Amino acid sequence: MKTPTKIAIQGGPASFHDAAARLLSSKESAIEILPCTTFRSLCQMLCAGESALAVMAIENTLAGSLLPNYTLLQEHNLHISAEVWLPIDQCLMALPGQDVAEIHTVVSHPVALMQCSSFFNQHPHLTPREAHDTADSAKAIREQQLSGTAAIAGKAAAELYGLALLAENIADTSQNFTRFLLLHREQPEQTLTANKAILCFQKPLHTATLTLVLSLLQKHEVEVSLLQTLPAADSGNSLVAELEAATKEQLQEAIAQIRPLVEGLQVLGILQKAELPEQKQTAAIL
Amino acid sequence: MKTPTKIAIQGGPASFHDAAARLLSSKESAIEILPCTTFRSLCQMLCAGESALAVMAIENTLAGSLLPNYTLLQEHNLHISAEVWLPIDQCLMALPGQDVAEIHTVVSHPVALMQCSSFFNQHPHLTPREAHDTADSAKAIREQQLSGTAAIAGKAAAELYGLALLAENIADTSQNFTRFLLLHREQPEQTLTANKAILCFQKPLHTATLTLVLSLLQKHEVEVSLLQTLPAADSGNSLVAELEAATKEQLQEAIAQIRPLVEGLQVLGILQKAELPEQKQTAAIL
Repeated sequence: MKTPTKIAIQGGPASFHDAAARLLSSKESAIEILPCTTFRSLCQMLCAGESALAVMAIENTLAGSLLPNYTLLQEHNLHISAEVWLPIDQCLMALPGQDVAEIHTVVSHPVALMQCSSFFNQHPHLTPREAHDTADSAKAIREQQLSGTAAIAGKAAAELYGLALLAENIADTSQNFTRFLLLHREQPEQTLTANKAILCFQKPLHTATLTLVLSLLQKHEVEVSLLQTLPAADSGNSLVAELEAATKEQLQEAIAQIRPLVEGLQVLGILQKAELPEQKQTAAIL
Repeated sequence: MKTPTKIAIQGGPASFHDAAARLLSSKESAIEILPCTTFRSLCQMLCAGESALAVMAIENTLAGSLLPNYTLLQEHNLHISAEVWLPIDQCLMALPGQDVAEIHTVVSHPVALMQCSSFFNQHPHLTPREAHDTADSAKAIREQQLSGTAAIAGKAAAELYGLALLAENIADTSQNFTRFLLLHREQPEQTLTANKAILCFQKPLHTATLTLVLSLLQKHEVEVSLLQTLPAADSGNSLVAELEAATKEQLQEAIAQIRPLVEGLQVLGILQKAELPEQKQTAAIL
């Protein structure tokens, strides 16, 4: 029997990272999820060889890029092989046999609570309470048999911990998606259909250099889909660029020509771009 | 007697926003601080004319840019007139007459707790507990006379609420600074010594256009100090650029030439650049 592939994630079982890990590792015959409490410990686990892969959130459509996570990738010299967008369907769940009127306290991660502020305005009898994780809030309700308390988490957490769904898609906007990256310690083989590159440069990056870099990208018909300046303290203010082109070869040629122009060019990954799903979700009290 | 100038801030009295508001409004003869619980409500208060000014954090040296805040500035059509960098000196404080060994619980904002993780590793008898605000955690200790509980907050909170400092500068790194912006509803008069501009563009911004924009900036000897792609959901993925030049005129001329090239150029502010302080702080148990 084959040993399962170990994948480090941020958060616990039935978290959104767990769902992303299952999607991104569909080629593996069996996987074992290793929960981490922070993004830094996830990188350390992968670097130490305690896991074969890791999955890390990098962008949310409401909050934007998770800038410190790019710094972690850079510092730990990790490699990205794939990405996926996942809808973040915030659901309200509680021990079976209760309805919303019987709930007084709602526990979840602060970001999830914040994303559901209209729901709290509509149900003023509900008091939000902050916790470390969405799925772990659901787990606590099951383990401590907490009546009158609900959790906000993904549907998978309700299934795993045997809770009843009281409401689905209760976030303020239905356009709530998170992009997750699949990470490796060593450089993985590049997919033939790769059409995206994720790079970082060290600053200072003078306007003259940046103009030259962009004119080279233009020459190779490479589009810049994302530019981010990283936090000043750790990285000395690096710049991240996500690039897109029709073929992997265009990206590789453009990168080869840029390399001598800039300080500390690091290719974080050459991969296939994931499309942001268009689907709209409708809030529903069940 | 003159009515005090009302300034909306995020957080309560003795918070870091409060300190930034006092620095940024030093020209006002008297001010009144209006606390807001979210950055959105701060913008709404200013737009509704309930405050004359507002102060908003935009960047931290550890966490990077607060990307959704640029979106709020854009959506509410607000104007920036000044900025300041403030050292974030996380201190441990409790009711007087206790030492660290007598404390069991430490309350603060999740980001402050996270920034002090080495301190918690060194003092494993301390249990962190999350709260909504740093300064309000200090207030709760005073009001509820909580023995055995400490708060992590700025020194000003200890002074305001009569708590004793147990330790100073307990964050993992001393390079913890936050940049704050002074905001107006109407466009303010530009300072003569302005040497910085904050702009945003609507995307899609093709490589060809971006190359043209940068070559114009280069022609006017304008340096790009920051580039950020904003969250996809609300703003349709705008790009923010912070620019620096020797004179205000160089910036104005460059902006005039860029304007016809890009969609929806918005000048968020033309102001004097604040320098990031170099000072190092040393952690100290008092």
